[in-house]
Amino acid sequence: MEDRIDSLRSIFKEKGLDGYLVLNNVNIFYLTGFSGAVGLLIPVKGENTLYVYGVNYEQAKAEAKNCNVMLVERNVKLEEMIGRKIKALKIGKLGFDGLSSVFYLKLRRLLRGNTRLKAENRLIWALRKVKTGQELELMRKAGEITGEGMRVAYETLKPGLTEIEVAAEIEYAMRKKASWGTSFETIVASGVRSAFPHGGCTEKQIRKGDIVVMDLGATYKHYRSDMTRTLVAGKPSKKQQKIYDIVRKAQEKAFKRIREGVRARTLDAAARRLIEKAGYGKYFVHGLGHGIGLEVHEPPTLNSQSKEVLKAGNVVTVEPGIYIVGFGGFRIEDTVLVHKERGERLTPAPYTLGYGQS
Amino acid sequence: MEDRIDSLRSIFKEKGLDGYLVLNNVNIFYLTGFSGAVGLLIPVKGENTLYVYGVNYEQAKAEAKNCNVMLVERNVKLEEMIGRKIKALKIGKLGFDGLSSVFYLKLRRLLRGNTRLKAENRLIWALRKVKTGQELELMRKAGEITGEGMRVAYETLKPGLTEIEVAAEIEYAMRKKASWGTSFETIVASGVRSAFPHGGCTEKQIRKGDIVVMDLGATYKHYRSDMTRTLVAGKPSKKQQKIYDIVRKAQEKAFKRIREGVRARTLDAAARRLIEKAGYGKYFVHGLGHGIGLEVHEPPTLNSQSKEVLKAGNVVTVEPGIYIVGFGGFRIEDTVLVHKERGERLTPAPYTLGYGQS
Repeated sequence: MEDRIDSLRSIFKEKGLDGYLVLNNVNIFYLTGFSGAVGLLIPVKGENTLYVYGVNYEQAKAEAKNCNVMLVERNVKLEEMIGRKIKALKIGKLGFDGLSSVFYLKLRRLLRGNTRLKAENRLIWALRKVKTGQELELMRKAGEITGEGMRVAYETLKPGLTEIEVAAEIEYAMRKKASWGTSFETIVASGVRSAFPHGGCTEKQIRKGDIVVMDLGATYKHYRSDMTRTLVAGKPSKKQQKIYDIVRKAQEKAFKRIREGVRARTLDAAARRLIEKAGYGKYFVHGLGHGIGLEVHEPPTLNSQSKEVLKAGNVVTVEPGIYIVGFGGFRIEDTVLVHKERGERLTPAPYTLGYGQS
Repeated sequence: MEDRIDSLRSIFKEKGLDGYLVLNNVNIFYLTGFSGAVGLLIPVKGENTLYVYGVNYEQAKAEAKNCNVMLVERNVKLEEMIGRKIKALKIGKLGFDGLSSVFYLKLRRLLRGNTRLKAENRLIWALRKVKTGQELELMRKAGEITGEGMRVAYETLKPGLTEIEVAAEIEYAMRKKASWGTSFETIVASGVRSAFPHGGCTEKQIRKGDIVVMDLGATYKHYRSDMTRTLVAGKPSKKQQKIYDIVRKAQEKAFKRIREGVRARTLDAAARRLIEKAGYGKYFVHGLGHGIGLEVHEPPTLNSQSKEVLKAGNVVTVEPGIYIVGFGGFRIEDTVLVHKERGERLTPAPYTLGYGQS
């Protein structure tokens, strides 16, 4: 973790910055190992300051690395406290990862004439996008736990259960394998609601023949996983099977192209062209995937507008889908680690559409 | 829900605004019943526009109320799309709920000279803080489900289990009662880690005599609940029981003062003074509580700096705590509805410290 702040410092120094202010608490966790702080100021030289309210102060002192932990009293304004420190350090040009407009305007007024503020979110993303060996160990474990959740989903799903009841079994199985919690809100969307990519899960009963999109993920020691399978509660119809097979082929096609150096938009195009050729192009209503790590949606984004070129160590989802309003939705998704020559799925589970076929 | 946009409009009109831009997706849900949008523009007269990416477009058309759903194409910049609409509507003074500095600066440049932008987050909070009958029904249900989670927590907890294993049973029980998911990351923090208010839960085994802080909450149809109990895995020591009793009395004292018209800081002071008099003041390291509803932390905040005066329909947590590093932490928390003459706990569970005493 020491390396991470050093790496960031050498990147922002190269950009001509004399300091960097981190306000995003996931970024702060990435750099210090502690997530309960409200700010981290990294000058180009000297000590880093971590700003923490009383509620988390003792935990910060016990857990945060490579920084001086500063208590923010309740009657003190955070932006003024940080502003004073920036002045004292004579930082002329300060990068930051993300500020609200209100915080930005206050800080700018406080620093007027002395410090230029510059949004430089990408600097930290350049680091976070490429996972280290230790991070990958945790992501592998998160993927395995997610696979266990999906195994139980296959086992559990049957007509008569509610969507929430299926989610209950999935999440319980993942917790039993030491999941630190869900990576996002579990989706078990059945019937016509499966046509909404973010259908959530409700008290609706699953009926025989319903298409069911199950999108789930475990977290392990802060690292996340993400996986979707689509099942039919019963024997699939011909049309269901046909559409499913197209999505499956699209996922495989994109997956096979994954390697260092490939452009993100090329991957999206590979899956999209296959779906378009099959006549379902307009029903693939989202991008192919997204990066994943400490957050469920991170760079690199895999869509038609993406300027990203994949690197070994990136972890991304590959998740084509076809969503037909009034009929149903189909999505297949895995979390995939990018290697020099290939991709590696971190989320193991069979690809079967029909219930009881696994 | 129609009333909500109308109410907001009459408030912002009173403030001299010609329009209001909502970017926070919980606020958007509150106003339209749909949470998957990226912006909502409300002019003082005429139609409201909801901005939605392709992935959620069909669901928005099916679920969003009182607005015209506008598709945001992937190759279009959201701020430019919204900026053009603001220009076309000739909005001279636009309030907003929350913008990132980057979005704000882009929008300001686009609108230069024509539209003034003003952060007016409080306008929506004025509405959201006071829950309607329908909202309270959902919060009551969330509270009941949370109570069931706590019942199972009491039943489950025993030495030898890991913190995560206890969380597994809690969350499973809540899901079985139709929880839509946890309201926040479940905390089961045992032993010395109980002294960290945000201790999370880990693979650590609970040992006999450990203090265990269990902080949990269910969500029901988007509405959240929040509750904490502190238990000892075994027979409590005299010191454990003594500190627990102080926290319990502090909670009851603050709770008894709840009614419309009371100042938030008065409630905090009531609990704090009791804990101070008992000699543990410096160990009560956070405020007394927070509002709760669609989000787990909302206004009105209950702490020593709060300027809030409670109103009937507010829902707040009351959660004093004593945290002694190296020894352990104690917190008792309920979600409480404010009535004209009294408070009402929405999170039912006994208050017992010793395991097996319930």
